[in-house]
Amino acid sequence: MNLQPIYNIAEICSKHGISQAVLSPGSRCAPITLAFARHPKINCRTIADERSAAFIGMGIAQQLQKPTVLVCTSGSAAYNYAPAVAEAFFQRIPLLVITADRPPEWIDQLDGQTIRQPELYGKHIKKSFNLPADLNHNDSQWHAQRLISEAINTAEEFPAGPVHVNVPLREPFYPTSQAEVKFDEDIKTITETNSIKDLSNRDWEVLIEKWKRFNRILVIGGQGNIDNRLTTPINRIIKEQKIPVIGDIISNLHPVENLIKHADLFLGQDKTGLHASLQPELLVTFSNSTISKNVKLLLRNHQPQEHWHIQASGYVADTFKSLTKVIRVEPDTFFKKIAEIELPPTFDNQKQENYYHIWQIEERKSTRLLQTFFPNEPFGEFEFIREVINALPDNSNLHLANSMAVRYANFNGLENPTVEVFANRGTSGIDGSNSTTVGHCLSSERLNILITGDLAFFYDRNAFWHNYDIKNLRVVLVNNHAGGIFRIIKGPNKLPELEEFFETHQKLTAKLTAEEFGFEYLHCNKRSKLTNYLKEFYEDSDRPKILELETLSEENANTLKAFKNTFKDIK
Amino acid sequence: MNLQPIYNIAEICSKHGISQAVLSPGSRCAPITLAFARHPKINCRTIADERSAAFIGMGIAQQLQKPTVLVCTSGSAAYNYAPAVAEAFFQRIPLLVITADRPPEWIDQLDGQTIRQPELYGKHIKKSFNLPADLNHNDSQWHAQRLISEAINTAEEFPAGPVHVNVPLREPFYPTSQAEVKFDEDIKTITETNSIKDLSNRDWEVLIEKWKRFNRILVIGGQGNIDNRLTTPINRIIKEQKIPVIGDIISNLHPVENLIKHADLFLGQDKTGLHASLQPELLVTFSNSTISKNVKLLLRNHQPQEHWHIQASGYVADTFKSLTKVIRVEPDTFFKKIAEIELPPTFDNQKQENYYHIWQIEERKSTRLLQTFFPNEPFGEFEFIREVINALPDNSNLHLANSMAVRYANFNGLENPTVEVFANRGTSGIDGSNSTTVGHCLSSERLNILITGDLAFFYDRNAFWHNYDIKNLRVVLVNNHAGGIFRIIKGPNKLPELEEFFETHQKLTAKLTAEEFGFEYLHCNKRSKLTNYLKEFYEDSDRPKILELETLSEENANTLKAFKNTFKDIK
Repeated sequence: MNLQPIYNIAEICSKHGISQAVLSPGSRCAPITLAFARHPKINCRTIADERSAAFIGMGIAQQLQKPTVLVCTSGSAAYNYAPAVAEAFFQRIPLLVITADRPPEWIDQLDGQTIRQPELYGKHIKKSFNLPADLNHNDSQWHAQRLISEAINTAEEFPAGPVHVNVPLREPFYPTSQAEVKFDEDIKTITETNSIKDLSNRDWEVLIEKWKRFNRILVIGGQGNIDNRLTTPINRIIKEQKIPVIGDIISNLHPVENLIKHADLFLGQDKTGLHASLQPELLVTFSNSTISKNVKLLLRNHQPQEHWHIQASGYVADTFKSLTKVIRVEPDTFFKKIAEIELPPTFDNQKQENYYHIWQIEERKSTRLLQTFFPNEPFGEFEFIREVINALPDNSNLHLANSMAVRYANFNGLENPTVEVFANRGTSGIDGSNSTTVGHCLSSERLNILITGDLAFFYDRNAFWHNYDIKNLRVVLVNNHAGGIFRIIKGPNKLPELEEFFETHQKLTAKLTAEEFGFEYLHCNKRSKLTNYLKEFYEDSDRPKILELETLSEENANTLKAFKNTFKDIK
Repeated sequence: MNLQPIYNIAEICSKHGISQAVLSPGSRCAPITLAFARHPKINCRTIADERSAAFIGMGIAQQLQKPTVLVCTSGSAAYNYAPAVAEAFFQRIPLLVITADRPPEWIDQLDGQTIRQPELYGKHIKKSFNLPADLNHNDSQWHAQRLISEAINTAEEFPAGPVHVNVPLREPFYPTSQAEVKFDEDIKTITETNSIKDLSNRDWEVLIEKWKRFNRILVIGGQGNIDNRLTTPINRIIKEQKIPVIGDIISNLHPVENLIKHADLFLGQDKTGLHASLQPELLVTFSNSTISKNVKLLLRNHQPQEHWHIQASGYVADTFKSLTKVIRVEPDTFFKKIAEIELPPTFDNQKQENYYHIWQIEERKSTRLLQTFFPNEPFGEFEFIREVINALPDNSNLHLANSMAVRYANFNGLENPTVEVFANRGTSGIDGSNSTTVGHCLSSERLNILITGDLAFFYDRNAFWHNYDIKNLRVVLVNNHAGGIFRIIKGPNKLPELEEFFETHQKLTAKLTAEEFGFEYLHCNKRSKLTNYLKEFYEDSDRPKILELETLSEENANTLKAFKNTFKDIK
């Protein structure tokens, strides 16, 4: 077949600024593989397990905030991408998923590696494209080119996400060994210049007038990247207008001063009518998901009069069952405008100030308890994760696996404003956190620290099964030899099936994994040694490192219970 | 919520004769987990990695020829089932895939572990069912019950396959620790009694008259289980009517006498017009896919006048581009009828006999070459796999991974009529062969020998990540530290990208995997030691065993080339 339009896929991607591709081995995909492998401006890696490959590609895209190309062969290979495609879809990460396919006449004819690939990712893809199988006619070539541009533009357009390009290929699809792969450098692309959205003056006036009339305003930021454009206006509204702002650890709002970071902790109990006293009149939210179940429950049970969500475009969830208004601008546009509201000196915001202080008092109690609680408890995963986070080196990335790792990290919070936090909270699966972290290692010089549990870690061990340098990886493995969360949540912890069917006991430690993949391995089980281990662990090295803590799931559950009980007793 | 209808799912399954479930840990699925774990007649295992869990369940269903239940929690867990669901779909293996879900009003509301589960498996599922979220009304309970019966009947109806039951569950979904899980033993089920299909006498007469008029009839059996009902009639048509019958190793037709097993070998070259002389007038096929590309090419290039496919119901592929008639009976019904044709003593079948002998001559040459070729070559994977197969113990199962393992095994063929062969040739992926084999180990006392390459083996290492006894597992790992197939097929073998992007070099051996999972580990690299190793390897043990051969991908490619060249020179 005429392979030039296939080679041009790489050129079109490059012209759109795409510089990264993750390939998986296969025969049907050969011309696509060659196009990307030989393109001078695209950095390719090959990863054998497509499930890991897709999460690695997603990590790269997340780090660079640019679509990454995935290329796999036909058949079930493409289906192994599905978990990462769903995660990227809900976490709004752009991916260009290119799957080689047999031409349509050969589908369902019992040839090998043939499934039904068009629309494979169902409702978890922004859009699905099918390249024409015959690329000889000029119009077909224009069609194919146009689709690639359209796919990339769709992936990047806010809210970003994965797109699927299925590419039927007829034999012969290998060029001769002498044949050159050339790129049409003058190939036409269609680029999109996106607009900045703003409201009319009239709409701003109405909003601001409303804003001024509320006495108990609460702001919550969902999962998002570090965004310096937001820090200054949010700092201003906290300081000048006394608006409490809640940010989970995955909100990356920790550079904000006086942020409420421990809401999930202190909302765990409703002593002396605390919850009712925290009910807002106006709730304002932005960005993606919230970890804290307690925050969700507070607001679902004590609903605001109004709930505004700030999102420039795309579907908006009603997470707190209270949504009344969607404001179609970027969060920084909104908060800059709000921060600039001139309040007359006589403006009475005493009620707002009181409301703010209730939140701040609980926040300070939480911080104090975290500082004083641990020395008297058996050394366990909560304290370990706290120490790991508090010692994070500057300018590193913190990756949090589901499910207990991200919860403990959120209990603790993060201070260091140079650290950025990532977690797969799109689908909240345990399936790809190693690989996502590896994707960041491959695309950034920053140190990448992953805190993970044993189930998530061993689930995705193939993240390390390749030949690329990931010396900037640090894995903190909290190994309780089970899914510890089931001992902590109410319900399964008292059932006779707890150990076999919920916790799923497993025996592995990371020692042999470290040996296999050439990681430095540190095993820690004493509080007294942790400081030294952490120093060594964070030091530069020419190899990745694993720091493993083995703990007892039962002891961890007891510590967490004791922590929560102590909290209740604090005045 | 009212959990009784959820508990009854297990009872309905049991009443339908289902006895096996594979569960994966999760919270949303708790009541389903409890229902199966506590049901006295259902054997449950818990497997943490859903990708492996689904292939294990598929292996169990394949071994028992009965649907296996899969249960997972909501979110990406369900998507990790997809590769096995697709394999089961194309390989016609019944599965009852039960996924817990949030109720519909909570979809897309940014809660954890929530994706869009209805219709998740798209075009790779026989049917998708959604249980009602509210189960309080009598009619809803009847609806839920009925759907489970319908799902099981659909999975079992020929051609069998996977069905999906999505189960929305509202909190609280944990019973109290004292609560008993009871099953409604008199619950209504709907069972199906399937008919035996036959043709009218008139249709048989027409077919048989046509059959008698052909002089060059060829029969090919695709992938299927050992079927004793077939052996006798097929033996008769070979012996009495001199019909050549081709069966790949995955056809499980090896108990048939004078079966053509090496067509893929001897059709590799077309010396002196061999291919034209093998063109049939009538081609008759039955069962599922064929491995041999050379058989496919022969028939696509030298098409029969007619091609009849025998399949009682369901979609029929036109694998050889020559299909003219679909006969809607079971293969054994067809061949019994054909075997009983009374041919008059004067019937002239000389042309058919000649045709038969051309096939038999090539078959015998292949057998002879296999017996004499190896002693003079470097010891490599082809010879190793041959010895492994020829020494297989009676009454064992042979599992073949994609892609080179199944090809080598097919080059060699199988003699032992008590051995049954399994391979994931539905999608021909490398993704689940360890797990499928483990499924057989869990559901049969037979010894299960898996021949696999390094990419397939490490891809699916989580097959062994559980606490169940698989002492009847024997893994034969042919480790060339790469996807060796790419050095053997024409095209990539001369490209500079061969090693990085096609072969995908990888460094692991199975030694540490064996240590982790408590396997006995045998490492073989000498021909002289193989006989002893095999003896030890096949012996009973209280642990599974791995026998690893490390070879050079280049040397293997050379041996295969030399083998094919020698073949060409045989007169």
